[in-house]
Amino acid sequence: MNLIDSMDAAGTLVFAMSGALTAMERRMDLFGVSVIAFVTALGGGTLRDVLIGSLPVGWAAHPHALRSVALGIAVAVLFKPYVMRLSKTIFLFDTLGIGLFSLLGLQKTLALGLPPEVAVIMGAVSAVFGGVLRDLLCGRVPLIFRKEIYATVCLAGGACFLLLERLWPQSPWNMAAVIALIVAARILIVKYGWSFPQFK
Amino acid sequence: MNLIDSMDAAGTLVFAMSGALTAMERRMDLFGVSVIAFVTALGGGTLRDVLIGSLPVGWAAHPHALRSVALGIAVAVLFKPYVMRLSKTIFLFDTLGIGLFSLLGLQKTLALGLPPEVAVIMGAVSAVFGGVLRDLLCGRVPLIFRKEIYATVCLAGGACFLLLERLWPQSPWNMAAVIALIVAARILIVKYGWSFPQFK
Amino acid sequence: MNLIDSMDAAGTLVFAMSGALTAMERRMDLFGVSVIAFVTALGGGTLRDVLIGSLPVGWAAHPHALRSVALGIAVAVLFKPYVMRLSKTIFLFDTLGIGLFSLLGLQKTLALGLPPEVAVIMGAVSAVFGGVLRDLLCGRVPLIFRKEIYATVCLAGGACFLLLERLWPQSPWNMAAVIALIVAARILIVKYGWSFPQFK
Repeated sequence: MNLIDSMDAAGTLVFAMSGALTAMERRMDLFGVSVIAFVTALGGGTLRDVLIGSLPVGWAAHPHALRSVALGIAVAVLFKPYVMRLSKTIFLFDTLGIGLFSLLGLQKTLALGLPPEVAVIMGAVSAVFGGVLRDLLCGRVPLIFRKEIYATVCLAGGACFLLLERLWPQSPWNMAAVIALIVAARILIVKYGWSFPQFK
Repeated sequence: MNLIDSMDAAGTLVFAMSGALTAMERRMDLFGVSVIAFVTALGGGTLRDVLIGSLPVGWAAHPHALRSVALGIAVAVLFKPYVMRLSKTIFLFDTLGIGLFSLLGLQKTLALGLPPEVAVIMGAVSAVFGGVLRDLLCGRVPLIFRKEIYATVCLAGGACFLLLERLWPQSPWNMAAVIALIVAARILIVKYGWSFPQFK
Repeated sequence: MNLIDSMDAAGTLVFAMSGALTAMERRMDLFGVSVIAFVTALGGGTLRDVLIGSLPVGWAAHPHALRSVALGIAVAVLFKPYVMRLSKTIFLFDTLGIGLFSLLGLQKTLALGLPPEVAVIMGAVSAVFGGVLRDLLCGRVPLIFRKEIYATVCLAGGACFLLLERLWPQSPWNMAAVIALIVAARILIVKYGWSFPQFK
């Protein structure tokens, strides 16, 4: 298991924890908490796999992702008070997950021979759609602004990655640089409350 | 047409009737009633087929399911008062449908070579997702508790079935026993109002 | 690029404009407007492609549709006041788009060897589902009546087309006649406020 697989598993685990915590706040039962955690962690990659035709979807073909989700649920349920105190750590891993899932989704799409602009879109879908589903299923006012600016960051990060790959093909630093960029952008967005102007 | 095909057709018909009755309660027109009936009867199997990559989806490849749906709509629309009085019979067939769709979905997933834990999940998706879609499209307060406990019963039933298949491979009694178990569990759940504890 | 490709591109562009205008009315930002425009223009064909198993979905395999969407967004955003004044022209192209997408979806389904009743359903899905998604994502009271009667027109148009194809196989007039029929029906429906009776 290499570094990327480890980060993928950690990202899935943190996404599952974020889903489980949201569902517990909504006073769901254990089954509801499990479904929301599952959908948050795997929903984005599932939609991407369906759209690009990589079927059966990832978690059906390689069910070790189910173990990451189960572990994330167990940790969130058993250690809820401790986990809540780690909100900054969770935020960091959640952001790492968004950056990583974005680039992994992009690469999976390119590997099927699909065009680069499609790959960038599929990367953002992979990273963001799980959280959108979580909010919808929890009846949360869709945090559209937050999602949108994250999604834009994913699209911009994906475009940067394609550019770096053209300049330095196959360099392992490309992925690291873009993930660092996405994490930095997300922290700045949250800190300064950046947003796009709305139409009126 | 063997016993399982007959039960499959009967389950589809009853699911379609249940969807049509819900839509008529919501004062939809004939088209809305038809769409809700269609989605209730075929939505679960459709999502399962997409996720496991069995495309085109079942009702597109074998449109005789469309005839079961059409018959269910016709019966619900033409004989609404009589059908409403048969609510216990409908409940029974609906439960039989849930049990049967669950095991058929499980077997279809296994037949594609996917792992058993994935097959159990796909069985529950097949059985439950049509009803979830029906509730969403009808703007009904999502009967999440009801769904969840049914879905848990489907998951448990699927796991039992896999166990029985390991003990007595290919025995025709395995499916009958698990469906009986699911029906009994659902009746007990409704009768005693069983539920899971919620998080607070 | 032949006539049908041009009409397809024009229909996609107008669907994207209609999505962008609805999102701007809802005071979304540029990203939200782009997502809604994308989903309105390509959502119906995407669902059809998934259901019939034509994967990757159309816009991923042939991303020139993305250019039609981008152009539609640009026109709607930059020339909003002028575009609003052209509401009758947009209505006409939107209706042309519905008729055309319906028949193109039908033909794509038949070309995969699926049965005619499935092809008629897939045609209506292609034409109508993008608008349904637009309304859902914009939190608009789902214009169910409007959608339903349009969808019925698409189903009827699809059935007429199959009949004409049986009478005069491959005649280029079949498609023109059915699109004219769908446009005429939609104009009459809007003018006289036709609807189906509701159940009570």
